[in-house]
Amino acid sequence: MSDKPSDFLKKIHRQKVVVKLNSGITFTGRLAALDAFMNVALEDTEEYVNGKQTAKYGDAFVRGNNVLYISPAEEEE
Amino acid sequence: MSDKPSDFLKKIHRQKVVVKLNSGITFTGRLAALDAFMNVALEDTEEYVNGKQTAKYGDAFVRGNNVLYISPAEEEE
Amino acid sequence: MSDKPSDFLKKIHRQKVVVKLNSGITFTGRLAALDAFMNVALEDTEEYVNGKQTAKYGDAFVRGNNVLYISPAEEEE
Amino acid sequence: MSDKPSDFLKKIHRQKVVVKLNSGITFTGRLAALDAFMNVALEDTEEYVNGKQTAKYGDAFVRGNNVLYISPAEEEE
Amino acid sequence: MSDKPSDFLKKIHRQKVVVKLNSGITFTGRLAALDAFMNVALEDTEEYVNGKQTAKYGDAFVRGNNVLYISPAEEEE
Amino acid sequence: MSDKPSDFLKKIHRQKVVVKLNSGITFTGRLAALDAFMNVALEDTEEYVNGKQTAKYGDAFVRGNNVLYISPAEEEE
Amino acid sequence: MSDKPSDFLKKIHRQKVVVKLNSGITFTGRLAALDAFMNVALEDTEEYVNGKQTAKYGDAFVRGNNVLYISPAEEEE
Repeated sequence: MSDKPSDFLKKIHRQKVVVKLNSGITFTGRLAALDAFMNVALEDTEEYVNGKQTAKYGDAFVRGNNVLYISPAEEEE
Repeated sequence: MSDKPSDFLKKIHRQKVVVKLNSGITFTGRLAALDAFMNVALEDTEEYVNGKQTAKYGDAFVRGNNVLYISPAEEEE
Repeated sequence: MSDKPSDFLKKIHRQKVVVKLNSGITFTGRLAALDAFMNVALEDTEEYVNGKQTAKYGDAFVRGNNVLYISPAEEEE
Repeated sequence: MSDKPSDFLKKIHRQKVVVKLNSGITFTGRLAALDAFMNVALEDTEEYVNGKQTAKYGDAFVRGNNVLYISPAEEEE
Repeated sequence: MSDKPSDFLKKIHRQKVVVKLNSGITFTGRLAALDAFMNVALEDTEEYVNGKQTAKYGDAFVRGNNVLYISPAEEEE
Repeated sequence: MSDKPSDFLKKIHRQKVVVKLNSGITFTGRLAALDAFMNVALEDTEEYVNGKQTAKYGDAFVRGNNVLYISPAEEEE
Repeated sequence: MSDKPSDFLKKIHRQKVVVKLNSGITFTGRLAALDAFMNVALEDTEEYVNGKQTAKYGDAFVRGNNVLYISPAEEEE
């Protein structure tokens, strides 16, 4: 296991991820791009509030300073 | 798909976009310019609060630190 | 249309602008100066809260980190 | 009119100014010093909350990140 | 005992830790990676709110600016 | 009167000062040290909330980003 | 008395300290390490909320941007 979180994130590039924001809003989508400020570009993006889907965006660019955590999501069968 | 979010955003330059702010306010407009701080210049800008249009600006310069996400909007026919 | 928001803003130098703050307070005035931190110097400044004029300052120097957006205002006849 | 807000502020050095903070607190006093972070040193400082004077300090050093705007105050006769 | 907190954290690399966020949310997991901004990569991550487990993530990348403290957790037998 | 606020503060080194925080908490004490981030080291520190003394610390190191203003306090006879 | 707060803090290295956070939470513990961002490593850490002990951690690494002040604590007999 590498010692830098950014290496950790490179492992999940192109995977489906969950991006939770400080506000509680959660996005799921394919991790298309990520930079050092934790700005995240997602494809096939879905927005959830309190577990309910509230929007679908296709591509979305989420600003890093609002991100609480990023985690690999279970891939649908 | 490039690995840097900023490349992602260059793809949608001159396109109609949705810019959602941390406060929940949403702008739609043509993405005229964007910089590394996510400062955004929009043309033909419309402001929405809770889905209702609250203002029209023509040009508007939105400061990056308030931006939650940017996403391509459906182009009207 | 240039690709940098700061070029966008140079176009509206000396014009009458609307400066909306994160707090909802809005200033109108002539854009006298602007720097990279979005610090704004306005002339003939008027302050509005919920659409009602609450003060007039003549010159005013507004700190960038409170700015939500800047937009050209309609010039009175 | 110069293009940099800091030049704008040099013009009002030694003048009586109003310094409004994000919290709504307002200071009046003579602008003794100012730096790039908008840290402000005032002389003959008076503090106002909702238009009522709440304190007098003589000298006071106000930290920039709390400042909303600075504006020349009317000089008393 | 070294004088730099980062040396302190290297000691607990690969150990089970508690990561408490400013919002009160707590994560437990194996400290896989950490960087200078206190961005944390955890393995076998569990999320707790008010002491109750609310989610399990496996891997999770938590953004540093939300972290309140990190502390070694008791290793289960 | 110098043009840099930091020179202003050097003048009151070793003096008794009032340090008001954004939260409204106020400290009084002898200004022992100060740095560019407005981190303040005080001696004989007293803490006040709404004008009532709530603690005495002897020495205290107050982090700059919470400071609203620093002002010379009246020296007791 | 040195003029830099960081020198002040070196004096209390290895001493028992009180670390108060912006949120009101207070930690006591032995100051094991400290860096320029006021990240603090404590040993034998105890957490207090409103004066009541709420947790004991042994070692804890507290992130600087949440710290309000650090002060030497009375050493128990």
